[in-house]
Amino acid sequence: MSTKPQNVKGMRDLLPQAMMLRQHIIGTLREVFERYGFEPLQTPTLEHAETLEGKLGDEERLIYRFEDHGGRKLAMRYDQTVPLARVVAQYQSQLQLPWRRYAVGASYRGERTQRGRYREFYQADVDIVGSSSPIADAEIIAVLTDALTALGFDNFVTLLSHRQILGGIARVSGLDEAAAGGVYRAIDKLDKIGPDGVRTELMNSGVSADACDRILHLVSLSGDSESVLNALSTALAGDERAQAAIINLREIIVAATALGVPSNRYAVAPRLARGLSYYTGMVCEAVVESPPMGSLLGGGRYDDLIGLFAERSLPTVGIAFGLDRLHDVMEELGMGPRGAMADVYVTIFNPESMAANLALAHQLRAAGFKVEHTLDASERLGKQLKTADQRGIAFAVVQGPDEQAAGEVVVRDLKSGNQHRFKSAELATGLRGIMQA
Amino acid sequence: MSTKPQNVKGMRDLLPQAMMLRQHIIGTLREVFERYGFEPLQTPTLEHAETLEGKLGDEERLIYRFEDHGGRKLAMRYDQTVPLARVVAQYQSQLQLPWRRYAVGASYRGERTQRGRYREFYQADVDIVGSSSPIADAEIIAVLTDALTALGFDNFVTLLSHRQILGGIARVSGLDEAAAGGVYRAIDKLDKIGPDGVRTELMNSGVSADACDRILHLVSLSGDSESVLNALSTALAGDERAQAAIINLREIIVAATALGVPSNRYAVAPRLARGLSYYTGMVCEAVVESPPMGSLLGGGRYDDLIGLFAERSLPTVGIAFGLDRLHDVMEELGMGPRGAMADVYVTIFNPESMAANLALAHQLRAAGFKVEHTLDASERLGKQLKTADQRGIAFAVVQGPDEQAAGEVVVRDLKSGNQHRFKSAELATGLRGIMQA
Repeated sequence: MSTKPQNVKGMRDLLPQAMMLRQHIIGTLREVFERYGFEPLQTPTLEHAETLEGKLGDEERLIYRFEDHGGRKLAMRYDQTVPLARVVAQYQSQLQLPWRRYAVGASYRGERTQRGRYREFYQADVDIVGSSSPIADAEIIAVLTDALTALGFDNFVTLLSHRQILGGIARVSGLDEAAAGGVYRAIDKLDKIGPDGVRTELMNSGVSADACDRILHLVSLSGDSESVLNALSTALAGDERAQAAIINLREIIVAATALGVPSNRYAVAPRLARGLSYYTGMVCEAVVESPPMGSLLGGGRYDDLIGLFAERSLPTVGIAFGLDRLHDVMEELGMGPRGAMADVYVTIFNPESMAANLALAHQLRAAGFKVEHTLDASERLGKQLKTADQRGIAFAVVQGPDEQAAGEVVVRDLKSGNQHRFKSAELATGLRGIMQA
Repeated sequence: MSTKPQNVKGMRDLLPQAMMLRQHIIGTLREVFERYGFEPLQTPTLEHAETLEGKLGDEERLIYRFEDHGGRKLAMRYDQTVPLARVVAQYQSQLQLPWRRYAVGASYRGERTQRGRYREFYQADVDIVGSSSPIADAEIIAVLTDALTALGFDNFVTLLSHRQILGGIARVSGLDEAAAGGVYRAIDKLDKIGPDGVRTELMNSGVSADACDRILHLVSLSGDSESVLNALSTALAGDERAQAAIINLREIIVAATALGVPSNRYAVAPRLARGLSYYTGMVCEAVVESPPMGSLLGGGRYDDLIGLFAERSLPTVGIAFGLDRLHDVMEELGMGPRGAMADVYVTIFNPESMAANLALAHQLRAAGFKVEHTLDASERLGKQLKTADQRGIAFAVVQGPDEQAAGEVVVRDLKSGNQHRFKSAELATGLRGIMQA
C-alpha cells in the first residue's frame, strides 16, 4: 500500500491524552446523572431508516443511509432522541413513567465540516419522560448546574426562557404566527449581529419600526430574574399563553432553588430562542461568560416528540451535553486531567532479577496503584528510567541484587532525582507517602 | 404510524437493568486495564472501506459498506484491530512503543443472527504493540486473570498454547503445511465432537491411522503445565520451531507467575487452535469449567497485522473481551449489580412542603447519595411510597408539616416498614447508618 490510510474526514480519533479527558467528562456526567436517579439506556447505532425519516426537516438529507445484506433500509442515528421515542413505544410495559433516562453515544450527520462540527459527534442526553411538572424542568436545570460545576466550570450562567414568552412578544407586537418565525430567527442572532443588526433584519421582513422597538426592548431585558419576569408580565398583559409561561418559569425557579441551584447560576433571558419548532415550554442554555466561550449546551421541554410512536402524549424535558464541544472548551481552558496513565514505573534490573522485580509490580497493583513496567529484561536501567520519564510517569521502582538480598527496594522521583529506600514489604505504604507529600 | 417501529434485527437495546450490568462490566475492565498502564483509544465507527478490505477473507462480505454524501466509500468497522493498525501508522510520531492500548466499542458484521451472535457487538480490546517479549504475553495473561477475577469469576482457567505447537504436532505426524490446516480445523472441534469425531474427520481428509493416534495423543495431553510441556518437548524433539515455542511458553509462564497469576488459573492445552491464520505465537482462551459455560474470550500474539500500514514489523499480543458474551454469561449466572439506581426516594408531603422536601433531596445528593424524588407535589403520599417500592428503592424520606416544625425528618424502610426519625441536619448521617446496618 503506497499511501497510508487516514481517518474519515469529520470523524475524530481520540488518542490517549484526548481520550482520558473524554472519559473524565463522561465519568463526571454519569456520576451526576446517577445522583439524580437517572438510568442508562443504550440503543444501536443503526435504526430502520423509516424510524428516523420525516422528523428532521431540511436536515434529513444529512442522514447516512444504506441497505444491509438482507435489503433492509437502515440509517445511522442522527440523535439520541428519536431512538428514545422508539424505545418508549417498544417497551411500554417494562418502563415506569415518569422515566429518568440518560444515554451517552455517537450520532452521525453528513454536515459540512468546520471547527467544532463533526460528522461523528458524541452526546450525553438526560431526559425526564412522562412528566409535565415544573419540578421536572427544575431537576434538569439542577442536573445541568451540578454537572458543569463537577466538571470544574465556575463561571457559567444558565439562561432560561419559555417558548411562549418569545411567542407573546411577537403577538403583542402585532405579528401573526407566520411572521413570528422570522422574528425568532432574527432574535436568535442578537448576540452575533447586535440590536442594530436585528432591527435591520426585522424591518427588512416587514416589521414596523414601532414593533421593532417594542420587541428589541423586551428581548433585551436583563437583571435579576424576578424583575425581568415582572417587566414581562406587565408588557405581555392580556396574552394568556405568555402569562402561563411566566407562572411556569416562576414555579421552575422555586423548585430549582430548593434543589440547590444558586441564584448566580441562572438568569431569565427572553431573547433565548433555540430551535423553536421542537420545544414547547421552558428552554435553557448554559453559557460561559468569563472567559467568553459562548454556549456550552442547552435543552428544554418538548412535549410532542417522545410520544410519537407510542401514540400518546408523553411530555418530556431534557438537555444534551455535546461532548465534543465540552471537550474542546475544556482543552482550550486547560481543564481536566493531564499526564501519564501510570503512577509508577517498575524497572527490571537485569534478566536474573526479572521475576523478583515483576513481583513488585504485582504487589503495587494489588495495593491499587497504576503500574507500568519494562517489557525488556535486558534493557539498560538508564534507558528504562528515561522511558518512564518521557512517558510522564513520576516515580520509578528499582531493585538490584543488593537491594533484593537486603529485602529492600528503591523508589526514585524522576523529576527531582531524589531516592527513597524502603523494606520491600512496605513499598506500597512508602510510595503512597511520597505521592501524598 | 400504524405499526410501531422496532430495533434492527441482531442489534440490541440495552434497557436500564441490562445497561447497568454492561457499565459494571466495562468499568471493572477499565479499572484493571488502567492498573497495568493501558491507555484508552477511540476510533470512529466508520473507516474508509479500503482500509478494512482484504483482511477478513471470506468474511469480508459481512462488512456494512456504503457511499457517503461526498461519494466516499465508507465501511462500519468489523473489529478494533484494523483501526489500531491504521492509528499506529497514522500517528507514528506521537506514539511511544511499546504501546499498551485498550479500546471499548461496537463493531458490525452482517452475520446470520443466532443465540449470542449480534450484528452490532461490543468488545473491550487490550493489546501491547511493539514488543515480542514473553513478558508482554505474560502481562496479557495477568490482565485477563485479574479482569475475570474482578468481575467475580472464581472458576475459570486460561488455556495456553502456541501456534508452533500444533504446527509441530502436524509436522512430526508427517503432514505438510497444506494438510495441517485441515488438522487444525478438526482439532478445534475436539470439545464438540470428541476424539472419535476428530479421528473420523482426520481420516476422511487422508491422515493415516498412525498419524491420527499420534496427533490425538498429543492434543489430549493434560495435567500440570510443566509435565505437559515436558511431554511435548520429548514428542516434538527435532522440530526447531516447536522447541522454540515450548521455551517461549515456559518464559511466559515464569513471568505470568511473577505477575501474580496463580497456577490454578492456567493450563497448557496443546489442542488450542483459535483462528490460526491470524496468530503467530502464544494463543490463549479463558474457559469457565464450573458451571460449564465454555469459552469466555481469547487472544494471543499476532505479529504480522498491526505493522501492515506502517510498513514495519510491529509484534503485538492482545485479547478481546466480547462484552455481549460476558454480559450473557454473567446474567445467566446472576453475577453483577441488581436493583434500583437510586438509594433513596424523597417524597413531597403536600404542595406547601415542596421546597422544604426538595431541599432534603439536595442535602442527600450533596452527601453522595443517589436520590430520586416525586415530580408531582400533589400526589398522595401512599402512592409515592408505592412507586418507590415498585422501583426497588429501599428507603423513603418523609417530612410533613409537623416534622418540619420540629426540624425533623422520617426515613422509612420500604421492605420492613420500620421508621426512623432524625434531626433534619443529621439526615445523611442517619441514613448512612441505617443503610450500613
